[in-house]
Amino acid sequence: MYSFKRLLVGKAKRTAQALHERLTKKTGLAVFASDALSSTAYATEEILLVLAVAFAAGTANAFHYVVPITFAIVIVLVIVAISYRQTIFAYPSGGGAYIVAKDNLGTTPGLVAAAALLVDYVLTVSVSISAGVAAITSAAQGTSWAWINDHKVFLCLILIAFIALANLRGVRESGALFAGPTYSFVISFLFMVGYGIVHYLVHPTAVPAPEDLKLAEGYHLQPLTWFLLLGAFSNGCVALTGTEAISNGIPAFKQPESKNAATTLAWMAALLATMFIGTSVMAYLYGVHPRESETVISQFARIIFTGPMGWFYYIVQATTALILVLAANTSFADFPRLASLLARDRFLPRQFATRGDKLVFSNGIIILAMFAAVLVIAFGGDTSRLIPLYAVGVFLSFTLSQTGMVLHWLRAGRIKKQADIATRENGSTANIMVTGQLVPPAQIKEARHWKKSIAINGLGAVATSIVLVVLVITKFLHGAWIVVVLIPLLVALFRKIHRHYLDIAAQLTTEGLQKLRPVQHEVIVPISGIHRGVLQAFEYAKTIANGHITALYINVDEEATQKLRAKWTGFVEGVELVVIASPYRSLVAPMIRYIDRRLQLHPHQLVTVVLPEFVPAKWWHHLLHNQTSLMLKGALLFKPNVIVISVPYHLKTEKNGANGKHLN
Amino acid sequence: MYSFKRLLVGKAKRTAQALHERLTKKTGLAVFASDALSSTAYATEEILLVLAVAFAAGTANAFHYVVPITFAIVIVLVIVAISYRQTIFAYPSGGGAYIVAKDNLGTTPGLVAAAALLVDYVLTVSVSISAGVAAITSAAQGTSWAWINDHKVFLCLILIAFIALANLRGVRESGALFAGPTYSFVISFLFMVGYGIVHYLVHPTAVPAPEDLKLAEGYHLQPLTWFLLLGAFSNGCVALTGTEAISNGIPAFKQPESKNAATTLAWMAALLATMFIGTSVMAYLYGVHPRESETVISQFARIIFTGPMGWFYYIVQATTALILVLAANTSFADFPRLASLLARDRFLPRQFATRGDKLVFSNGIIILAMFAAVLVIAFGGDTSRLIPLYAVGVFLSFTLSQTGMVLHWLRAGRIKKQADIATRENGSTANIMVTGQLVPPAQIKEARHWKKSIAINGLGAVATSIVLVVLVITKFLHGAWIVVVLIPLLVALFRKIHRHYLDIAAQLTTEGLQKLRPVQHEVIVPISGIHRGVLQAFEYAKTIANGHITALYINVDEEATQKLRAKWTGFVEGVELVVIASPYRSLVAPMIRYIDRRLQLHPHQLVTVVLPEFVPAKWWHHLLHNQTSLMLKGALLFKPNVIVISVPYHLKTEKNGANGKHLN
Repeated sequence: MYSFKRLLVGKAKRTAQALHERLTKKTGLAVFASDALSSTAYATEEILLVLAVAFAAGTANAFHYVVPITFAIVIVLVIVAISYRQTIFAYPSGGGAYIVAKDNLGTTPGLVAAAALLVDYVLTVSVSISAGVAAITSAAQGTSWAWINDHKVFLCLILIAFIALANLRGVRESGALFAGPTYSFVISFLFMVGYGIVHYLVHPTAVPAPEDLKLAEGYHLQPLTWFLLLGAFSNGCVALTGTEAISNGIPAFKQPESKNAATTLAWMAALLATMFIGTSVMAYLYGVHPRESETVISQFARIIFTGPMGWFYYIVQATTALILVLAANTSFADFPRLASLLARDRFLPRQFATRGDKLVFSNGIIILAMFAAVLVIAFGGDTSRLIPLYAVGVFLSFTLSQTGMVLHWLRAGRIKKQADIATRENGSTANIMVTGQLVPPAQIKEARHWKKSIAINGLGAVATSIVLVVLVITKFLHGAWIVVVLIPLLVALFRKIHRHYLDIAAQLTTEGLQKLRPVQHEVIVPISGIHRGVLQAFEYAKTIANGHITALYINVDEEATQKLRAKWTGFVEGVELVVIASPYRSLVAPMIRYIDRRLQLHPHQLVTVVLPEFVPAKWWHHLLHNQTSLMLKGALLFKPNVIVISVPYHLKTEKNGANGKHLN
Repeated sequence: MYSFKRLLVGKAKRTAQALHERLTKKTGLAVFASDALSSTAYATEEILLVLAVAFAAGTANAFHYVVPITFAIVIVLVIVAISYRQTIFAYPSGGGAYIVAKDNLGTTPGLVAAAALLVDYVLTVSVSISAGVAAITSAAQGTSWAWINDHKVFLCLILIAFIALANLRGVRESGALFAGPTYSFVISFLFMVGYGIVHYLVHPTAVPAPEDLKLAEGYHLQPLTWFLLLGAFSNGCVALTGTEAISNGIPAFKQPESKNAATTLAWMAALLATMFIGTSVMAYLYGVHPRESETVISQFARIIFTGPMGWFYYIVQATTALILVLAANTSFADFPRLASLLARDRFLPRQFATRGDKLVFSNGIIILAMFAAVLVIAFGGDTSRLIPLYAVGVFLSFTLSQTGMVLHWLRAGRIKKQADIATRENGSTANIMVTGQLVPPAQIKEARHWKKSIAINGLGAVATSIVLVVLVITKFLHGAWIVVVLIPLLVALFRKIHRHYLDIAAQLTTEGLQKLRPVQHEVIVPISGIHRGVLQAFEYAKTIANGHITALYINVDEEATQKLRAKWTGFVEGVELVVIASPYRSLVAPMIRYIDRRLQLHPHQLVTVVLPEFVPAKWWHHLLHNQTSLMLKGALLFKPNVIVISVPYHLKTEKNGANGKHLN
C-alpha cells in the first residue's frame, strides 16, 4: 500500500520546503486568467443553443441576437471588473468572497458565499474538462478517430484523474507552467478572430447548416420571446466565471501587489471582452448553427483555415483543450485552499486543514476530483447540460462579495467623518476609534474616496444580483434548482460541524481542573481455560493492579469447569477465581453483567478488563478461533468507567514449542 | 441487529432443554427414510436421460433397458442394505462412515469418508430441492402458472432459505413432523403404481412423444453401447443415496435400538425397491420419453389420473415435492452433526462444535445452506446436471464404511480365536486381551459369526467399490471430476487445520511453567495537546505505572509546541514530556521509532502505551476527527512486548460542559 502511494505521488516533502513564488504582471495574467479566458471556448455556443430553440421553431434570424446579447454580457463584465478592482485595493491580502462576506456581512453570508464557491469550483472542473474534451472530439470529426466521440465521459474521467494526481504530487501554479499554454491560446484565438474577419471580407462564406442541430435541453420549441432572450443571456454569463480569481491571489504578485493585480485584472477583462465579442461576431458572420458532434468554434475554424492554413485549425483546437485543462487545474488549487480555510474556522472536518506528504491539501484535492467525476458521469460529459448549474454559484458569490464591499465603504464613511472631526478638533487623525477599535492610518487614507467607491461597488452589487435573479428564474428547471437546494444544505452542514467542534472544545477544556489524582481500579481477567497466554495476562494484570485481581470464567460445560478447578491450584496463586453459570451458553452477556454489578458496587472505581488474546501468525488462523474477545471488546467499547487491555500472546508459525520469550 | 435475529430464529433455549425423543419403528421409518425414498422421484428419469441419447441416435427400443438397469441397481441396494444391517448391530451407538472408517482403517480414510459425506450432504440439499421444484413446475405445465418454470433457481433459493431458517429456529426431527408427509408420499406413490398398472391393463395407452426430448448433458449422440448402459446404471444409482441414514441414527430408536433400527432398514429397502421398480416399469409400459419441461412421473401420472381421478395427479406432485423438501431437511441435521464431530476432533474450526441459541449447530446450518445455494445457482437448478456429482461421494463413503467393517470382523476373528483358546485353557473368556486392550463380553459374543459377517460386508465392499469405479469412469467428464478433486483438497484442509490446533496447543501448554512472576514495564502516553481526555489518561497511566510515566508529543508545528510547553507546568506534575520533531508531518512513524528505541534500550521490559481517546456520541462524529490513534493501534498490534491501552473519554451529545463524572 505504502509503496504504491509513493509511486503515485512521489517522495514526501519537508515542512520547510514550502516556497512562495512571486508573479510579475505577465506571469500573473497567465496563472490567474486561464479560468476566465477559457470560458470564451464555450460561452458563445451556450448562447446559440438557446437561440436555436427559436430558430428550430421558425424564427429564421434567431441566431443574429448572439451579438447584442454578447455586448450585454460584456457590460456586466466591465462592471464586475471595476468593482473587483476596488476589492483588490481594499483587501491586499486576498479578498475572496468568503472573507469579504464574513468580514462585512457576518458569518452566515460568509458561509453562503463559501458554499457557492465550493459548488462553483466543482463545476469549473466538470465544465472545463467537458469543454476541453469537446474540443478534442470536434477535431476528430471526419477523421478515423471520430469514434472517440462515444467515449467522452471516459476521456473526462482520465483527465480529471490526471489533474488530481498532478496536484497530489504537488505541482506548483508556477508562471513557467501556465505562461506557455495561456499565451498560446490568447494569441492563436486572437489570430483566428482577426484572420476570420479578413477572410470573410475577402470571400464571404457560410458554414453549411448541419443535420444535427443542437438545442438547449429542457426547452420546448417556441418563437423568440423575451424570456428566451434572457435565457440566452443567462447561458452566456458563464463567460464571467473566473473573473474573481485575481482578487483571491493578490499576495502572489510582486510589489506593489495591489497595483500589479489591478493592472492584470484590467488586462484580463479587456482580453476576455475582445475574445468573447470576436467569437460571437464570427459566429454571426459565418452563420454557425450549434451541432451535436462539433463545437461552434471548431465549425468556423474549419471553414477559415483551409488549404495551406489547414494546420492552424489543429493549433486552435489544441490550445483550446489545453487552456480548459489548465482552467480545471486552478480549481484544484482554489477548492482545497478554501476548504482548508473553512476547516481552520471549524466549518469543515479538520482533515481538510492538514497538508499531506507533498505539502498540498490532499483531502480537498481528492474530494474535488470525486465530486467533479460524479457530475461528469451524471451529465454525460455534456458541457451544455452542466451550464445551468454553473453560473448561479458564481453570481451568488459576486453579489455577496460586492454587497460586502458596500458595507465596507459605509464603515469607511464613518471613519471619514470621524477623521474630518478629528482633523478639525485636534489637527491629527492619530487616535480615531470606530466601534471600539483603533483605526490604522491606511484605512483613513482609503476612506477618502468612500462615496465614489460605494457607487461603484453598489452598481456591481445591483448588476450581479439582477443577473443572479435572471439566472435562477430562467434556469431553475434546467438544473439551477440543484444549486439552490444544495447551498442551504451545505451551510447547514457547516453550522452543524461547527457546533460539534465547539461542543467538543467545551467538553475537553482544562479550565477548572485540579492536579492529577490517583485512580482506584479493580482488575478482572476473563479466561476460557488455563494456558500460557492466560498466565501471561495474569502476570501483567497483577503488575498493573498492584495486588488483587479476579479471573472470570463462564461455565458452559460442567466437565470443563471441573478440569479448570483441578488445574487452578497447581499454577495460579493469589488470583481469585469467579465462575459464572451460563444456562444459555452465551459467553459475553454474563461477563458484561458481572462487570456491571462490580461497577454498581463500587461507583467510584474503574474496572480494568485484561483480555488474554493470542495473535495468530497468519491471518486465516483467525477463522479457526472463536472471536469471543473481539465481541467482548465491542460490548465494552461504549461502557463508561471500563478500560479494556488486550495482552497479546504472539503465536509462531512453526511448531517449535512455546513462545517463552515474550515476558522474560 | 439483535432483535432482528430474535425475530428470525426465536427465543434462546437453555442447555438443559436439550431433549431426546425416542422413535418407534414407524416414526423412525418416517424420519430416516425420507432421503432414500425421495430419490425414487428422479432416479428412473436419470436412467431414461442417458438412454435418450441412444434413442435420439436411432435406437428405437433404447428406453426398454430402463427395467433391467433398475433391477441391477436394486440388487446393489439389497447388498448395501444387508451390509448396513450388520453395521447397525456392530455400532449400536451410531456407525456413520466417518466413525467406522476412522476406527478400523485409520484417520485418513476416516477423513476421506467425512469429506465424501459433507459433499454428499450439500448435494442432497441441491438435488432434492431442484427435484422438488421440478415436481412443482411440472404440475404448473399447461396451467396459467406455466411461467414459474423460468424461475426455478429463485424457487430453489427460497426453499433452501426456508429450510435453513426452520433449522436455525431449532425444528426437531420429530416423528410427528415427518410421519404425515413420508407416509402420504409412500401411499400415494404405491397407489399410483398399482392404479397405473391396472389402468394399463384395462386400456393400454402411451404418453405422446414430446417435442422437447431431454438428453443427459455431455453426451454426443451414439447408439446403445455398453458404456452408455453403464452410464445409465450410474445415473440410476442415486436411488441408493440416503440408505445409510438409519445406521447413523440408531440411538434415536426405542429399545432394543439395534433390532428396531435393523427392522426399519429392511422395511425401507423393501419400500425403496418396490417404488423404484414400480416407477421404472410404469415408464416402460407407458413409453415415457424424458422432457425438458416436465418430469417423467408427472407425465404418466397425468395420463393415468384423468377424468374423476384428475385431482390425484396433484396429490402425487404435492407429496413428491414435500418429501423432497424433507429429504433436503435431513441434510440440515446430518451436515452440522458431522461438522461438529470433525470440529471436536479438531479437523474443522471449533465454531462448528458450538451450539447456537436454539441448541442447534448454527454455523454448520448456515454453511450448508450457502454451499447448496451456490450449487443450485451454478447448475441452474437442474437436477440432471447435478446428478453426476452426487453419487460419487455416497459410494465412496459406502465403500470405506464396508471396508472398515471387513477389518472390524478380522479383529473379531482374532478375538474369537483368543476366546476359543481361553475357553479351552481356563473355561472362561473373562480376561481376553487383543492388541493390549481388554475385550468386553459383548464383543466376544458378536465375534461368533465373524466369518459370515466378513463375507456379507466383503460383498458389500466389493459391490460398492465396483459401482464407485463405474461411476467415476462414466461420469468423470460430466462433473464427477469436481468431487474427485474436491475430496483430497478437503482432506488436506482438515489436516492443515488439525496441525494448526496441535501447534497452538503445544505453544500454549502450561507444562514446564513456574509460578506467576511480576513484570517490568515502562508507560508512555502519546498526546496531541492538553485536554481533559489527556489528563484522565495521565491519571490512569500513573496508577498502573506505579510511578514514572512519559508523555510523547510530536512537533509538527513550532507554534503549537510552544503553547503546549507553556500550558504544561500549570497542569501536569510528575510526567516527563518528550517532544520529537517530525519534519515530514507524520505522526505515527516517529512514535513507533521512539517506542522501538525504548524496547532496544530495555530488552527485558514491556512498553505499555496508554492512548487518550475520545469516544464521540454519534458515529458520524468520527469523520470529524483525525484517526491517528487508530493508525497507531494498527501499527503496534503485531509488535511483541508492546501493550496498548485506550483510555476512552466519552463525549456527550448535548453541550452541557465537560464530562467530569468519568474518573470521580
